[in-house]
Amino acid sequence: MRVYFDNAATTQLDREVIDAMIPFMESHFGNPSAIHYYGRETRAAIEKARKTVAKYLKATPSEIFFTSGGTESNNMAIRCAVDAYKLRHIVTSTIEHHCVMHATEALQQSGAVTLHYVNVDEKGRIDLQHLETLLASIGEKCLVTLMHANNEIGTMMDITAAGTICKKFDAIFHCDTVQTVAHFPFDLEQMPVHFISGAAHKFHGPKGTGFIYVHHSVKIPPMIFGGAQERNMRAGTENVYGIVGMAKAMEIGYDQLEETKQQIASLRDYMKEELKRCIPDVAFNGDVEGSCLYTVLNTSFPLNNKSQLLLFNLDMAGICASSGSACSSGSNQNSHVLEAIHADPNRVAIRFSFSKNNTREEVDFVIAKLKQLVGEPVTA
Amino acid sequence: MRVYFDNAATTQLDREVIDAMIPFMESHFGNPSAIHYYGRETRAAIEKARKTVAKYLKATPSEIFFTSGGTESNNMAIRCAVDAYKLRHIVTSTIEHHCVMHATEALQQSGAVTLHYVNVDEKGRIDLQHLETLLASIGEKCLVTLMHANNEIGTMMDITAAGTICKKFDAIFHCDTVQTVAHFPFDLEQMPVHFISGAAHKFHGPKGTGFIYVHHSVKIPPMIFGGAQERNMRAGTENVYGIVGMAKAMEIGYDQLEETKQQIASLRDYMKEELKRCIPDVAFNGDVEGSCLYTVLNTSFPLNNKSQLLLFNLDMAGICASSGSACSSGSNQNSHVLEAIHADPNRVAIRFSFSKNNTREEVDFVIAKLKQLVGEPVTA
Repeated sequence: MRVYFDNAATTQLDREVIDAMIPFMESHFGNPSAIHYYGRETRAAIEKARKTVAKYLKATPSEIFFTSGGTESNNMAIRCAVDAYKLRHIVTSTIEHHCVMHATEALQQSGAVTLHYVNVDEKGRIDLQHLETLLASIGEKCLVTLMHANNEIGTMMDITAAGTICKKFDAIFHCDTVQTVAHFPFDLEQMPVHFISGAAHKFHGPKGTGFIYVHHSVKIPPMIFGGAQERNMRAGTENVYGIVGMAKAMEIGYDQLEETKQQIASLRDYMKEELKRCIPDVAFNGDVEGSCLYTVLNTSFPLNNKSQLLLFNLDMAGICASSGSACSSGSNQNSHVLEAIHADPNRVAIRFSFSKNNTREEVDFVIAKLKQLVGEPVTA
Repeated sequence: MRVYFDNAATTQLDREVIDAMIPFMESHFGNPSAIHYYGRETRAAIEKARKTVAKYLKATPSEIFFTSGGTESNNMAIRCAVDAYKLRHIVTSTIEHHCVMHATEALQQSGAVTLHYVNVDEKGRIDLQHLETLLASIGEKCLVTLMHANNEIGTMMDITAAGTICKKFDAIFHCDTVQTVAHFPFDLEQMPVHFISGAAHKFHGPKGTGFIYVHHSVKIPPMIFGGAQERNMRAGTENVYGIVGMAKAMEIGYDQLEETKQQIASLRDYMKEELKRCIPDVAFNGDVEGSCLYTVLNTSFPLNNKSQLLLFNLDMAGICASSGSACSSGSNQNSHVLEAIHADPNRVAIRFSFSKNNTREEVDFVIAKLKQLVGEPVTA
């Protein structure tokens, strides 16, 4: 048995998504910028996909631009907003995804901006009052970049509340929504946000494809220069299969949102309760009983000779989970998120993240294995 | 009958390429940065692909970085080289692809660099003596970015000759090789070049995937910041299917290079001779009898009431060709390449570009159609 509980890192493609992509790999292969038959065919598919993405997010198609993924989208929002509006200040947090964190740090290192960090509490909740204080003290137009939901611990921020504060201070507001697109409803007509980002592979779509939403009031230059693709906003021959697959994945995600959400939330609750019942001294990182991704359960075990290699032992037992962000697990760094929320360094954090493909039997399997691995009294 | 003669814009995926990609869409879906089973599986596939790409280009795997395509690769080389070495001058030409042209122009507009244009003759040949004069006059370390083969007219530059001049002046040399990778042999151990770029969809691989070669002596920062992917050089979850597909396409391209080259070159020659035989006053743009892509034939017809809508009429007849770069055909701009080589504005240019999938029967079909469309005396 192999159990995949790392859906915040990436999800398996839906069969319907693959089926939607394959014709564009096999026969509809034209360059969408070509004006002949093959080009018009793929151009039409891309514009149809754009309409689908816009429809589900209640945006207009002209506000949606396709990119190579969430990381590119977040980089583009941050760098190009600073460039377009000659911004000198960015307000962000210490729990952002590395793509936001390192993009803002690079701008500070280049001398273009000063970074300001809004306070985050021990559950990963953004202190919106502090955001207001910061914006008041900066006293000029700036960029605010704060994530909708933290990818490691799942804690969510109220976009509308944060955006309303940004609006009051005329700040540009970018929200990294990579973990929430197609998992939560968006009404971009109403939400006070200038940029959001999405990555198809986080919602059963293909890797290598994402989008950026740019509110119509905001004008930015491209980050990648070249041809006239994406209305001069993102050059490069479009990843047609990826875009078509992303739109199909979003369609499925939103059409089945309520039932999927209920199924996954109940699975997560079940696992939480079973862990509490079976594992001594288990705890959870993040706002686990409050506003949290229903797809993420960041569990915490006391550090001892059994838990030290827990992730490795789970993997040996066929259970795929994560210590935090997939993006940094290749390197041997500690989680900046757990550090930022002052998580106890004498505990071991394991992120279990769920999808509609997971079952209660899989949770039972994991609980049984955890009982063996960390459930008994420590022998050392 | 539908005839596809726009292979310089994009090529159809090989069946073996699709077959190599599909397992990574269906079951091997892990995030390559994850350390568990599913992650190791895709990580291994990416590193295998990197070795394949490196092997065929005679580079080392650590010099190959995967990107979202040729446009990103070219942007990255240019912007990051200027940034890393604090370069103040770029030498380029007026016939570069838009992704090089607009990336260099953006750097000039930002005030970072001054652009210098090397002379180009009426066949699109780079004046290497002028390159030497320019580099001598600049008198400091700079970036040279010149394409290996022009995508519109096919004229090729001798990389080794250009690179040798760059070396003499300690210049960083970037060569846009998007039209030549997997179509011509590369020996990067020997070639004096610091950056080359590739886009899988130009050699029967998938769209949305490319690579940049960075010579080991060159150290640049990333263009897209975030996770530790690509050894901190290109953040974002890797497009695993795309990378696997690109490696397979390159393998096929190089393993069959000689026979494919002969087949396509003979097809192109046949079409050239047939055009000369059947179409009054036909001409060709580029170094058509000299150093030229065997995949491109840029033909030129006298402007009249029949030729004016030639591309449109060819499309109506099921023949897919192009007026030049696909990347700009969405917009109504004239070709900057034809302008740069002072092509007669009173002629109509059509680019026919070939692949191994084209046949002599298809050429005959096009010739027959062209005879009807522009072969007879003009009535107006």
